[in-house]
Amino acid sequence: MLVATFRRLLWAGLTLTVLPAAAQTAATTDSVNIRRLYDEALARGQSYDNLRHLCTRIGGRLSGSPQAEQAVQWGKVTMEMLGLDRVYLQEVMVPHWVRGAKEKAVVRGAKGKGLDLAVCALGGSVGTGGKLRAQVVEVQSLQELAALPAEKVKGKFVLFNRPMNPLYIETGQAYGEAGDQRRAGPSAAARRGAVGALVRSLTLAHDDYPHTGSLRYDDQVAKVPAAALSTNSADQLSQLLKADPDLTVELEMSCQTLPDVKSYNVVGEIKGSKYPDEIITVGGHLDSWDLAQGAHDDGTGCVQSMEVLRLLKATGLRPERTVRAVLFMNEENGVRGGNKYAELAKAAGEKHLAAMESDGGGFTPRGFNIEADAATVRRVRQWQPLLRPYGSTNWTPGHAGTDIGPLKSQARVLIGYDCDSQRYFDLHHTAADTFDKVNRRELELGGASMAALVYLLSKYGL
Amino acid sequence: MLVATFRRLLWAGLTLTVLPAAAQTAATTDSVNIRRLYDEALARGQSYDNLRHLCTRIGGRLSGSPQAEQAVQWGKVTMEMLGLDRVYLQEVMVPHWVRGAKEKAVVRGAKGKGLDLAVCALGGSVGTGGKLRAQVVEVQSLQELAALPAEKVKGKFVLFNRPMNPLYIETGQAYGEAGDQRRAGPSAAARRGAVGALVRSLTLAHDDYPHTGSLRYDDQVAKVPAAALSTNSADQLSQLLKADPDLTVELEMSCQTLPDVKSYNVVGEIKGSKYPDEIITVGGHLDSWDLAQGAHDDGTGCVQSMEVLRLLKATGLRPERTVRAVLFMNEENGVRGGNKYAELAKAAGEKHLAAMESDGGGFTPRGFNIEADAATVRRVRQWQPLLRPYGSTNWTPGHAGTDIGPLKSQARVLIGYDCDSQRYFDLHHTAADTFDKVNRRELELGGASMAALVYLLSKYGL
Repeated sequence: MLVATFRRLLWAGLTLTVLPAAAQTAATTDSVNIRRLYDEALARGQSYDNLRHLCTRIGGRLSGSPQAEQAVQWGKVTMEMLGLDRVYLQEVMVPHWVRGAKEKAVVRGAKGKGLDLAVCALGGSVGTGGKLRAQVVEVQSLQELAALPAEKVKGKFVLFNRPMNPLYIETGQAYGEAGDQRRAGPSAAARRGAVGALVRSLTLAHDDYPHTGSLRYDDQVAKVPAAALSTNSADQLSQLLKADPDLTVELEMSCQTLPDVKSYNVVGEIKGSKYPDEIITVGGHLDSWDLAQGAHDDGTGCVQSMEVLRLLKATGLRPERTVRAVLFMNEENGVRGGNKYAELAKAAGEKHLAAMESDGGGFTPRGFNIEADAATVRRVRQWQPLLRPYGSTNWTPGHAGTDIGPLKSQARVLIGYDCDSQRYFDLHHTAADTFDKVNRRELELGGASMAALVYLLSKYGL
Repeated sequence: MLVATFRRLLWAGLTLTVLPAAAQTAATTDSVNIRRLYDEALARGQSYDNLRHLCTRIGGRLSGSPQAEQAVQWGKVTMEMLGLDRVYLQEVMVPHWVRGAKEKAVVRGAKGKGLDLAVCALGGSVGTGGKLRAQVVEVQSLQELAALPAEKVKGKFVLFNRPMNPLYIETGQAYGEAGDQRRAGPSAAARRGAVGALVRSLTLAHDDYPHTGSLRYDDQVAKVPAAALSTNSADQLSQLLKADPDLTVELEMSCQTLPDVKSYNVVGEIKGSKYPDEIITVGGHLDSWDLAQGAHDDGTGCVQSMEVLRLLKATGLRPERTVRAVLFMNEENGVRGGNKYAELAKAAGEKHLAAMESDGGGFTPRGFNIEADAATVRRVRQWQPLLRPYGSTNWTPGHAGTDIGPLKSQARVLIGYDCDSQRYFDLHHTAADTFDKVNRRELELGGASMAALVYLLSKYGL
């Protein structure tokens, strides 16, 4: 089962171990079955059509919104049509933040003439209660802010303007490293007496899209309004500040947080034929930000997860362990769905063999990030040669995902679907994250690679 | 030099051979120098800005067109600004085919009401001399056509309608397999007495873009007009034919071939510091089809090839062997530039160590296709671990490229830059092949990977 017999693997330089006859047969069977999963996905994949519906008929679906509830119903009906053994909802209370009217930010210099900035509220931000006008102090980091004299910050906006580092090959590393400005910047600014925060958008592109995303308020300090500026606007404001340090920005945002709302995770399940009590969960998050259609973040992960079940059924590869697709609610601003799923699994005494998540976009598959002890990582990676003919080469230890994170102590392994990361942060959390940015084949190949690994996990366990 | 010392390689599961101290030092030096090439490309790469100019200021540049000549001048000036040791043009006579007025194809049924098809002339086709109206016979292959009774074909259009096979993981395989319909279909149709050929566009997408591309007329039979239909139009015509086998298509194309025109390859060169007589050529093709801007086909290959030289200079990594960037003219409909380059190299007694080509689009790098004897392939592949941290994992024997093909008997190795192939044929030879379809980082990563391999070739030879 460990070494594929595909001829292309031979000249790919892999060592063909001499295996016992039974193992050789298993390897051949697995190669053939994985090829069947890919054939089904490439010839008759439904991920793309499902995604079209979710993105263009429902659209952006922030937790608590009417669209999020439409998405729940859509997910349930779509899974019911797959003829699964069980489809159900898991109730969960979610935050309900609303953006309100389109945000405005105007730079006003000595001459009084205004210049519009491309801006949007960060998710969870309080509103400005009318127009909020203040001077601006620019910093590159939380550390630089902490070192500033109090009078340099008090009563001003803090502009957090450190760009993402373009030198990382995987863009997620750069996102992780720059993200403290968005998450912790607003409260750090408030702690120093600032009236608000302006945060450079988390992207490697130079353009006019502001990128929203969650902030985390510190309960110990006042909640101040926080907005993202597009990278072009952040650069422009920085330039203007150099020429006129006394300029002001006038910010107007009517966002607010309403009472929590009842929502749901959507769960579909194929019962394992031999070990129904061992569960393999595969999921994406159903909620999205409100600025666009939530295509790559994370409509793709949802349709791929449902497609894993469909591919297993369509190919007749009934899994020996139970396989569940979960459309998690509220990844973006609370992870309430992910937490609820783990909590209910624990309360029910469920045994999770593995949990897999797709939340890095629907781009061409590169491999998987495997989060487990070293021995388990090695076991999973033994299957890598079986997916090498499909370009899935990068099976590395690493962070698996946000929604399955709460399952860490309950699952033998957490697995993050890893795909090409170059375009993701051009679109992430912006108005550009739309269906037309998704390539059908890239999406379907991703679902097929997830199905292949789920098939192996369900057959062999760990 | 064979094994990188990057820590990420350790957990990527590669075996670290115990190397002599000198080899360890060389490996470290190479890792560091390759990282410098990538840093320069990601932080200050110029490929993207160069491509913007070529695509949006010059645009489509079919051989013999005024835009092709503008592109030659642009290429020369752009390379001169790099401060190379030598920049020059190689004169070459090229075909001069012109599309004329926008093509029209109308389906006319029993009721006489017309339905427009999305159509364009295949490159090199003769025109229709006014409107050409005929019935249509549909086939899936050249073999099926050859087996048809003569009366089924005579006086009709042949519709070649075999789709590209979606099951291949690399789309180029499907293109290669379906391409006989476009290249040989028109003359095969003429041989059976048809008045013209309609060819399903070579793409895996289902949309309304007709894809042009070269046909090859057989001198032994009449030249009949040949057009590509978009996949949607081909499907639609096929459906209509089932309902009404007697329907006619009225085709109108004013394309024609004019006398050959003088044009040029553009060549820029850095002299090798130790072995100036050993040459490494890296190139793309400067001509493109006329329907769009020739962004992925092959503006990206041109700017990446020039970027290889710029990266070597900017990092101070003066190559020990001579490195040449060549912008080949006329890949699309004649390969006159590629043939001329090889002919002049032979006449001058030049010794080519290697020739590399980028002509599969500017998508995320996957590796290289290596065309050489088995021992040389093995030697080149020994360097693969050095590029593994950058996602360049797929170094396989295979076809390297059309423009460097004529150098086969003169070069130790031919190398094709291999990148993600999923989106390429959505754009290839259509009006959609525009600058906005290119991602900056994907493009620059590709140029960096080419520069890294050129650096290794120039340092170690073969």
